[in-house]
Amino acid sequence: MTNKLRIVPLGGLGEVGKNMMAVEYGDNILIVDTGLMFPENDMLGIDYLIPDFQYLLDKRKQVAGIIVTHGHEDHTGAIHHVLEEINVPIYATPLTRGLLEDKLSRNGLAGKVRLNTVQAGEMSRIGPFQVEYFHVCHSIPDGVGLGITTPAGLIIHSGDFKFDHTPVDNWPTDYAKLGEFSGRGVLALLADSTNADKPGWTPSERVIEPALDQVFRSAQGRVIVATFASVISRMQQVGVVAARYRRKMAFVGTSMTENAKIARKLGYLDLPDDLLVSVDQALKMKPHEVVLMCTGSQGEPSSILGRLSTGTNRQFDLQAGDTVVLSSHPIPGNEETVHRTINRLFRRGAKVIYDAIAPVHVSGHASQEEMKLLMHLVKPKHFIPIHGELRHLYQHASLAQQVGIPPERVATVENGQVIEFENGEMHLGERVPGGYVFVDGSGVGDIGPSVVREREALARDGFMMVTLMLDKHSGRMLEEPEIITRGFVYTQNADELMASVQRLITDTVRNHDGDLQDELQQAIKTFLYNETRRRPMIFVTISQR
Amino acid sequence: MTNKLRIVPLGGLGEVGKNMMAVEYGDNILIVDTGLMFPENDMLGIDYLIPDFQYLLDKRKQVAGIIVTHGHEDHTGAIHHVLEEINVPIYATPLTRGLLEDKLSRNGLAGKVRLNTVQAGEMSRIGPFQVEYFHVCHSIPDGVGLGITTPAGLIIHSGDFKFDHTPVDNWPTDYAKLGEFSGRGVLALLADSTNADKPGWTPSERVIEPALDQVFRSAQGRVIVATFASVISRMQQVGVVAARYRRKMAFVGTSMTENAKIARKLGYLDLPDDLLVSVDQALKMKPHEVVLMCTGSQGEPSSILGRLSTGTNRQFDLQAGDTVVLSSHPIPGNEETVHRTINRLFRRGAKVIYDAIAPVHVSGHASQEEMKLLMHLVKPKHFIPIHGELRHLYQHASLAQQVGIPPERVATVENGQVIEFENGEMHLGERVPGGYVFVDGSGVGDIGPSVVREREALARDGFMMVTLMLDKHSGRMLEEPEIITRGFVYTQNADELMASVQRLITDTVRNHDGDLQDELQQAIKTFLYNETRRRPMIFVTISQR
Repeated sequence: MTNKLRIVPLGGLGEVGKNMMAVEYGDNILIVDTGLMFPENDMLGIDYLIPDFQYLLDKRKQVAGIIVTHGHEDHTGAIHHVLEEINVPIYATPLTRGLLEDKLSRNGLAGKVRLNTVQAGEMSRIGPFQVEYFHVCHSIPDGVGLGITTPAGLIIHSGDFKFDHTPVDNWPTDYAKLGEFSGRGVLALLADSTNADKPGWTPSERVIEPALDQVFRSAQGRVIVATFASVISRMQQVGVVAARYRRKMAFVGTSMTENAKIARKLGYLDLPDDLLVSVDQALKMKPHEVVLMCTGSQGEPSSILGRLSTGTNRQFDLQAGDTVVLSSHPIPGNEETVHRTINRLFRRGAKVIYDAIAPVHVSGHASQEEMKLLMHLVKPKHFIPIHGELRHLYQHASLAQQVGIPPERVATVENGQVIEFENGEMHLGERVPGGYVFVDGSGVGDIGPSVVREREALARDGFMMVTLMLDKHSGRMLEEPEIITRGFVYTQNADELMASVQRLITDTVRNHDGDLQDELQQAIKTFLYNETRRRPMIFVTISQR
Repeated sequence: MTNKLRIVPLGGLGEVGKNMMAVEYGDNILIVDTGLMFPENDMLGIDYLIPDFQYLLDKRKQVAGIIVTHGHEDHTGAIHHVLEEINVPIYATPLTRGLLEDKLSRNGLAGKVRLNTVQAGEMSRIGPFQVEYFHVCHSIPDGVGLGITTPAGLIIHSGDFKFDHTPVDNWPTDYAKLGEFSGRGVLALLADSTNADKPGWTPSERVIEPALDQVFRSAQGRVIVATFASVISRMQQVGVVAARYRRKMAFVGTSMTENAKIARKLGYLDLPDDLLVSVDQALKMKPHEVVLMCTGSQGEPSSILGRLSTGTNRQFDLQAGDTVVLSSHPIPGNEETVHRTINRLFRRGAKVIYDAIAPVHVSGHASQEEMKLLMHLVKPKHFIPIHGELRHLYQHASLAQQVGIPPERVATVENGQVIEFENGEMHLGERVPGGYVFVDGSGVGDIGPSVVREREALARDGFMMVTLMLDKHSGRMLEEPEIITRGFVYTQNADELMASVQRLITDTVRNHDGDLQDELQQAIKTFLYNETRRRPMIFVTISQR
């Protein structure tokens, strides 16, 4: 039991405190967000990653609650993994709650958890923490930042935010609240660093509407808009423009349809019933009378847009005259897939509009000038850049210096580095596990780096498997060795190579003077490398009779 | 023997005509460029790709020569593969020739090929083709575009180009020549589309110098500049600024050192001897007295910068106070690796400058306004966008329309689509193989999509290998089955799963009523999927005694 206030940015994939964070005072812990990450290109075969929260498992009795700041996967996606271990009350705004409920029911946790709805502007007492939720603009409605009053002082957590003066839902970030916080004195500001290397001010979500209008005005046939299933504001904008051009609107795909339903039910999406039609209805209408909204703007092969780009979509296909809008920006690492998808859409005869050629997408995160504004509004004593990779945190830290926060009061740390506040001063505490856990199939954490390294080796050069049957007395081969390879060479064209391997095996069996298995593996390995400059995994099994 | 003029954009990775192209008239063929491509992230284990030029193999007798427009890998890298099949004279400007010679000698072809040096402004007669080389600005010196006079008319090939009014080597693109061509009447323009979705005008290479000056002025310790080994102009600029701030300059790594040597010898790089020091000397000097130039700006793990970022560089390590400049832009697909490298450099205490936060790099390719200028200068009857992916070609084609080239005179095609000119009219001809060939280790083309698919499967879920020894009379198992897995689960933590597989095998052997091998594979496959939601490859080998 200590009276220190501790900030613990927990695991993630480089983005500090983005997916999960703990705020501790005494023996009370508050969790902020429980998100997942998608694997990088070299994390072979991994479905997704979740934060490594073993640090909390040892203290699970102390956890008082989980706050989810907004409804994006990288803040909500690990909720069921966390709740299975630490089933504490969850606090979320209505839309975030709605999206969480959907996720929880899909993971068999519906009704098994305690969900508390909170509104921006409200306050919750959670253990010794007094949490004030303030509205922030982002690329999903109903996002909040947090003012956490603790016995050690007031901490402000920005959540994912931007300062949009003309948001599509007409609900700007709560400047007054931020000002009020500064009046009370803020011990530390923790702020979103995603766009710390973007100068200026992120454009308003509103700028997309003229671009969409332009698209609809010139579109001859169907309009197909692809974006994230969570960008409710984009649905709203497409709806408005669709109505303007007398087009009916249909949502394609489960996630898109489901999210739209939730958002409409809760009043975050204002689309008149007579604007919406089912996909089946839409497909029966004249091309210039419909707009379809679907997922796949990241080029995911299994998404609607991905399948349309390869002509493998069940329900409908692209047709001449279609205009496809990718209303999104490639997530780092997805560029190749997104560009390939765009090329394929062109190849299939669609007119394709994407963010490089028209402002059909804007970022949901603050740029440098907004970051500075937040610091001036909050006037924090200490500053901790979060929600970004190290390079973003360093940029954000230098912005803090520019607005006059002395370097010694800025903590640029990585996941797992505990930050402590005592008597108003900030110190670095110990390091705790701050990594991630692979989720692959139904396995959580049963695959570690070693297995991924095996997959890398197999992916690089494949393997060769040799099975031998020897006479247990004479040691001679009783059958032709069986050789299987995968991912190594196209065997139909490698008869000669295989024949040489057969000979090599025969000779080695005849002449070996040490452990046969080792000698065979070594000999085959060396031979194949000399012949092909590749290093497939080699397996030799020897049976005797 | 026909009197058609044929343009054949040959294989590549989406970028049309970028890596190789054939110009045919009658029974004479001219090859333009012989480049390689680097694999996309999902081309597992592949070293690089070269164009599929089998179309030319059947006509190799007709090939009159190879022109290499400039010294970049994606235009030169396949030269030895092509020459091994089609050893015809090569035409290149001095720097390009110098870089080619280096490459050829490393591939044992030194002295075995006919290299002709040509100068921008000169002309070569190659078969029925009269080729005029005109200078273009690009991110490597001595690049040329081509004016190819054929019996069917004059074709202009832009090469990779930009219109830089203040190039570092003070050698602007040859506007006069382009104007002269238009005077003669141009049948078709083939132009670089790389930046067709970039509005405006690509900044001059010159803008980098102030940014570098700023870096050097504020750098306390060593400056380390990473860029491509081929960006001679960057070496020149770093040299100028280094001298200004009394720093000595050292090139690190073979390719960088070798290219600098060639460029200096041929007079394309003007660095006084007393400015240059060896790496060993540099490392002995005071940090503020040196600048090191190395490769690795794409985050290649094996490059100098890659090794510095992981602390695995042999010769020297990063030290506090180092300023690292990534003077490049991530090649699409490399973003993840580049960003990871930048984060690691920050983690190791370096101050990192990259193109997102300072103008330390500009593109070597023309933007939209330059593309329009080229069209106006050349006034072509027909237009063929090349050197870009399909999405770029479509943008470039729409720019052509904007400057008044009617759509029916623009051919937006993919690799392998023959374009024919007859009596001044353009028609699409047949399709020929326009793909690529994988190069992996020493194997060229011995790995096809099927092997890569095997690698994908292995990378996704690994494999399980089961070896059984049965009694040939009773069919009972004589030994515990041997089970090997790789890339599937971390076996140390999977005892239970393995035990269940053992039991499953025992039961199946006891109760099977069909082909045992099939039944085992099927049973294990189903079991593992139900247990883990993964689908490893399953191999069962059965021996009897």
